[in-house]
Amino acid sequence: MIEIAVLRIGHRPERDQRVTTHVGLAARALGAQGMYLAAEDKGVLESIRDVADRWGGDFFIQDRVSWKRCIRDWKQSGGVVVHLTMYGERVQDREQDIRLHDRILIVVGAEKVPGEIFGLADYNIAISGQPHSEISSLAVFLDHLLQGTELNAEFPQAKIRVIPSPAMKRTEQE
Amino acid sequence: MIEIAVLRIGHRPERDQRVTTHVGLAARALGAQGMYLAAEDKGVLESIRDVADRWGGDFFIQDRVSWKRCIRDWKQSGGVVVHLTMYGERVQDREQDIRLHDRILIVVGAEKVPGEIFGLADYNIAISGQPHSEISSLAVFLDHLLQGTELNAEFPQAKIRVIPSPAMKRTEQE
Repeated sequence: MIEIAVLRIGHRPERDQRVTTHVGLAARALGAQGMYLAAEDKGVLESIRDVADRWGGDFFIQDRVSWKRCIRDWKQSGGVVVHLTMYGERVQDREQDIRLHDRILIVVGAEKVPGEIFGLADYNIAISGQPHSEISSLAVFLDHLLQGTELNAEFPQAKIRVIPSPAMKRTEQE
Repeated sequence: MIEIAVLRIGHRPERDQRVTTHVGLAARALGAQGMYLAAEDKGVLESIRDVADRWGGDFFIQDRVSWKRCIRDWKQSGGVVVHLTMYGERVQDREQDIRLHDRILIVVGAEKVPGEIFGLADYNIAISGQPHSEISSLAVFLDHLLQGTELNAEFPQAKIRVIPSPAMKRTEQE
């Protein structure tokens, strides 16, 4: 199985709490195994762990990570690093290449990212060359990488589960 | 050409400003023609119009919309309404049907949405039955609906344009 983690950089505690929480939840829902956070933010950790605890699976989140060390360690252990940026190559041109790798670290920045990251990443990839959101970029990238298979994933040990329905909220709880 | 607009409901001014701005920017970047906002928020309008003005295309945004009237008008003029919700049918099971329509209003809620919306929508659609983000849900839905073609879109009359690059920021400006 392909191993995927997200590294969130440029997070500013307080101001970015909600967006970073959405990044982590999208990562979990769409096939990543965990998120490294290059900052300290207990609120983000608690929100994501709370969801993971109730909704199943074994998504990990680790904060206070040095982003440079995280990237270096990932590459040293044979993984590749994909930095999502509107300035990068078009995802539709590179996704087939990237899919050949089996350990992928996806770096997701906030508004400003250190320029160094462009050189440290193996791939700089754009989900359109338009400004939008790190959350939407990550979501489309994961869905392309996994070719939609992530939408069929099961989350074991869930305490609550949705039963898909055309017109109402249906869940089952343990 | 398929006509797509987004209706953002449940927006709370201040608190949701950043997330709603991301919803609008993702809508624009990934193939929608405009966004209706069922609230008043000048900050959101300004941010999105500023991007649209610099980066091209003719994305519209309209605030102070009554969501019920917006849905009713859309349906009366022959369009279909797709509500994105984790409780809905699986996108992978319904996207082919939805693609047969040529006017689609995508309803995107915040944390709480009025229960009525489930009955008013023609489709309630889940991008995985897991909690994540309205931004990631909208992005994956648009990409599935348009089958990736939105990533090749041009934005006419742009004042600034990215030149895709493997390792640096390159833009051209008028």
